[in-house]
Amino acid sequence: MSSQKAAKMEGIRLLLLEKIDPVSMKGKNEFVVAMDSVGAGLDEIVFYVSGSGARMAETTKGLPTDATVTAIVDVIEQNGSIAYQKK
Amino acid sequence: MSSQKAAKMEGIRLLLLEKIDPVSMKGKNEFVVAMDSVGAGLDEIVFYVSGSGARMAETTKGLPTDATVTAIVDVIEQNGSIAYQKK
Amino acid sequence: MSSQKAAKMEGIRLLLLEKIDPVSMKGKNEFVVAMDSVGAGLDEIVFYVSGSGARMAETTKGLPTDATVTAIVDVIEQNGSIAYQKK
Amino acid sequence: MSSQKAAKMEGIRLLLLEKIDPVSMKGKNEFVVAMDSVGAGLDEIVFYVSGSGARMAETTKGLPTDATVTAIVDVIEQNGSIAYQKK
Amino acid sequence: MSSQKAAKMEGIRLLLLEKIDPVSMKGKNEFVVAMDSVGAGLDEIVFYVSGSGARMAETTKGLPTDATVTAIVDVIEQNGSIAYQKK
Repeated sequence: MSSQKAAKMEGIRLLLLEKIDPVSMKGKNEFVVAMDSVGAGLDEIVFYVSGSGARMAETTKGLPTDATVTAIVDVIEQNGSIAYQKK
Repeated sequence: MSSQKAAKMEGIRLLLLEKIDPVSMKGKNEFVVAMDSVGAGLDEIVFYVSGSGARMAETTKGLPTDATVTAIVDVIEQNGSIAYQKK
Repeated sequence: MSSQKAAKMEGIRLLLLEKIDPVSMKGKNEFVVAMDSVGAGLDEIVFYVSGSGARMAETTKGLPTDATVTAIVDVIEQNGSIAYQKK
Repeated sequence: MSSQKAAKMEGIRLLLLEKIDPVSMKGKNEFVVAMDSVGAGLDEIVFYVSGSGARMAETTKGLPTDATVTAIVDVIEQNGSIAYQKK
Repeated sequence: MSSQKAAKMEGIRLLLLEKIDPVSMKGKNEFVVAMDSVGAGLDEIVFYVSGSGARMAETTKGLPTDATVTAIVDVIEQNGSIAYQKK
């Protein structure tokens, strides 16, 4: 939360994401702050877009963002088998 | 796969790529998630574009992507000899 | 401060930011220079946007910037509890 | 070489570049794949542009690229003396 | 210097910058090649912009650049005291 911010940041929800290793599915202790566009919650695995692509979601057009969560992951498949399935 | 996602993510296939060392042709245990634009499959070596260039393929225009697979690699040449040839 | 600069850099305030680890809240000894758009001060935790998003704040449109402070952080929540609160 | 690729990739020459340390002029075992816009050859030192700038050369406008070779280096000067001269 | 280059690279001055640690003010042995827009010289500390922001200076509009020097630094202030002053 922030009380002093650029005008366009009003009403925006910022999420603190921890990057995961897609093999072990464990957190890597590396973090990124991303705008939410899908209503992501605690302990979910999400997909986020960085760079100018972060402003290509309907809800982030023209906003000062460099990272946006665009999907909550249901299933990750690796080498033909399921590596992760959302509960 | 994802059931909750930004509108523009519908019907998009996301691939989990492992980066390779172009000398040893071995995986580097570094991963990137990229949109598919060529129908890439398991165990293929692909070329992907990151950043805003990822939206320059015919199929990814205006989509919230920061990485897109734009070619499946047939041959890699190094110092004049063939380092990789697709089976 | 700079006396020789590109025309568009006149009157711009550049801040030297130290990145923090969002778990320990300690500085990581990694730095970034960012344009200020919110009047941030010493010892505050701020949110900054990098890349082309840095030019999406009202005050940085068209400026040669790749990083802009867009918010001063009041509260950081982690796993449901408050990890940081601005004094 | 690639037989399956995005339409805009037709006729494009991709180069495998090895980054060099500008002090020792030795390869760093870090690689980048870049589009060619100058006819670069084996063992030449080249300058490449990454990100959206990679599409600012005459020949790469609108192409899905994030790295383009824009110059073959003739001379590198360091601290007033010549560190590299093309043969 | 380069004799074979993309058309838009004519007359452009490229600088080899060494990144510094803003605490010790020592070089970090990491380098970046940037276009000059301010007439920077040897042993000066400069500020450069990377990414698409590198094309936002008056002199670099539309050029294939991903890094541009936009200011020569006169003074760096840290924790309220002066860490660097140009001679």
